[in-house]
Amino acid sequence: MEILEKLRIRPLEWVEDDPEGPRLRWLDTRLLPWEEVYRETRDYRRVAEAIKAMEIRGAPAIGVAAAYGLALAAFYSGAREPGALWRVLQEAEKLLASTRPTAYNLFWALRRVMNRARASLEKGEDVDGIIRTVIDEAKKIHIEDIRTNMELGRIGAKLIDDGDTILTHCNAGALATAGYGTAEGIMRAAVEEGKRIRVIATETRPLLQGARLTVWELMKEGIEVRLITDNMVGYVMYRGLVDKVIVGADRITADGYVANKIGTYMIAALAYRHRIPFYVAAPSSTFDLSIEGDNIPIEERDPDEVRTVLGKVLITVKDVEVYNPAFDITPPELVTAIVTEKGIITPPYRENIARVLRGG
Amino acid sequence: MEILEKLRIRPLEWVEDDPEGPRLRWLDTRLLPWEEVYRETRDYRRVAEAIKAMEIRGAPAIGVAAAYGLALAAFYSGAREPGALWRVLQEAEKLLASTRPTAYNLFWALRRVMNRARASLEKGEDVDGIIRTVIDEAKKIHIEDIRTNMELGRIGAKLIDDGDTILTHCNAGALATAGYGTAEGIMRAAVEEGKRIRVIATETRPLLQGARLTVWELMKEGIEVRLITDNMVGYVMYRGLVDKVIVGADRITADGYVANKIGTYMIAALAYRHRIPFYVAAPSSTFDLSIEGDNIPIEERDPDEVRTVLGKVLITVKDVEVYNPAFDITPPELVTAIVTEKGIITPPYRENIARVLRGG
Repeated sequence: MEILEKLRIRPLEWVEDDPEGPRLRWLDTRLLPWEEVYRETRDYRRVAEAIKAMEIRGAPAIGVAAAYGLALAAFYSGAREPGALWRVLQEAEKLLASTRPTAYNLFWALRRVMNRARASLEKGEDVDGIIRTVIDEAKKIHIEDIRTNMELGRIGAKLIDDGDTILTHCNAGALATAGYGTAEGIMRAAVEEGKRIRVIATETRPLLQGARLTVWELMKEGIEVRLITDNMVGYVMYRGLVDKVIVGADRITADGYVANKIGTYMIAALAYRHRIPFYVAAPSSTFDLSIEGDNIPIEERDPDEVRTVLGKVLITVKDVEVYNPAFDITPPELVTAIVTEKGIITPPYRENIARVLRGG
Repeated sequence: MEILEKLRIRPLEWVEDDPEGPRLRWLDTRLLPWEEVYRETRDYRRVAEAIKAMEIRGAPAIGVAAAYGLALAAFYSGAREPGALWRVLQEAEKLLASTRPTAYNLFWALRRVMNRARASLEKGEDVDGIIRTVIDEAKKIHIEDIRTNMELGRIGAKLIDDGDTILTHCNAGALATAGYGTAEGIMRAAVEEGKRIRVIATETRPLLQGARLTVWELMKEGIEVRLITDNMVGYVMYRGLVDKVIVGADRITADGYVANKIGTYMIAALAYRHRIPFYVAAPSSTFDLSIEGDNIPIEERDPDEVRTVLGKVLITVKDVEVYNPAFDITPPELVTAIVTEKGIITPPYRENIARVLRGG
């Protein structure tokens, strides 16, 4: 896959040149920025585990990994006839879909691969043919994610002015996608165009994706970045230090409600108060047109994520009650625009999301 | 000091029954909630160090400790004549005043003790007389802080309804004062009146006073508390989980601008958006009537406070640039009321602060 050569950071790789059969390789983002550890498997169950444990994280990356999970399930199914293969795929889909409830790209990617597999099955293809179809579709999703990010970045870079300071939250970068990034993809594209930008990254408790991943990724690219704690967002805006906000998304509804990392809503509300443009960067695969309003399932994670820092240090009384929603929902009235690979979507969102995603 | 017997938590104590001379004893709040370590000194320089390093923290506690710092400086000055004693006091005042720039109670307490010392000097009292005056004034500030907090709590408890869920930030409790608390003093008083309340405590990065101190203090009192990360404030308000916000203050201007722990402004802006009452609890010694607007000096602290968690774990790339303001400023239009021991102050603040503090 030539397009991979263009990437400086490759969080996911499908390794095919192996006589014992293909493997999925990924960068374990939990260990960054201290260690760059790559993990590999031929077992889709291990892929599900990696998604659940957030070794692989970020909505687009989860989608690509899940598609490869199905590819591994197909290749190593041991099925001798199409019906048996289909049942293995259904089982794998079920497990992979159960890993994380909020990121829509996960369900989108699984459905896309399963639809291709079913079409292949219904056409009467044999086991080998169906396996090839599944693997090809997963690889296609992978390559498309990179291309989509690059296109999204190119489109979004128009919103960035030379000299801008951009605040971002969590990590919507190379490490959240197949390798270019959505929010960070826009920053990369702006820098490639010669614009000088500075980034303020929130640390993003509890799992510190901003401090660990965004800082690491931007420093690696030579983009100026400054780290703040999550509670400094209001003050940096009050002091006039922020020109624009760009964040990623885990799911966007038909009417423009945006689920993203916990803290996003707070940042959007503050940006609104300070009249700072608030942009969401997401590929079309993040849109769930089947729902409206704030009815997005929000994952609640282990209280120990809050009681500790990365499981390394206890920061409170060990049995204190905790609330740990991993995401929140930003209502459309706080979103200045949504940048997709198909164009920039502005309000009114209900009409414009439908129109732009249709390619109009 | 009988009033001390009423306190379950005694963060500061003036130990006098010692033939070798008095000592200041304090609870090192940096080690909570894991260890309850008390430290002691007879050296005012050590008191300055304890304030700077945040072993003693919280505006009212800093004020009391600084007053005792002057008491130690006087007692152990070795001065044989009033002029020499006065010069030692001036030196001690200068060092103690240089520890932290934002909390107004520090300057208020130092000035109050120094004014008494000068009056004593000008009256022609001898060295022993001046020393006695200084120590007595420090002890008076200490006792008054407890009484003031209790009165403030009693007054503020009127604002609390049975069944309320109160969100608080940082720690404005026993561990930020001489032992009863301002924001937490209101909670204590409400509970003493038989009201059932629940508290949501923000962890308060970087130094985690919410997770370490507020949680510990409220659990010790049997008050129901739930811990969240700072970036969850918007979401818990969005979900309707917060009835009221109460925070402390480090300095309040003549026109109602409130300096308090970084993150307070963000919480106030979100409370405003959600029409949740936002109360500030502070004794009259926190008001700096000499300034207006947001011209409050804001302390910036060591970047490693952000790069690490409590110096124990590095959470990012070790040389990343960091912004670390310890406080922010909340404008008066976001403050529903300020609770003091002299009454509840509501807008318009310029007139009402002057009137209530005058005792009108």
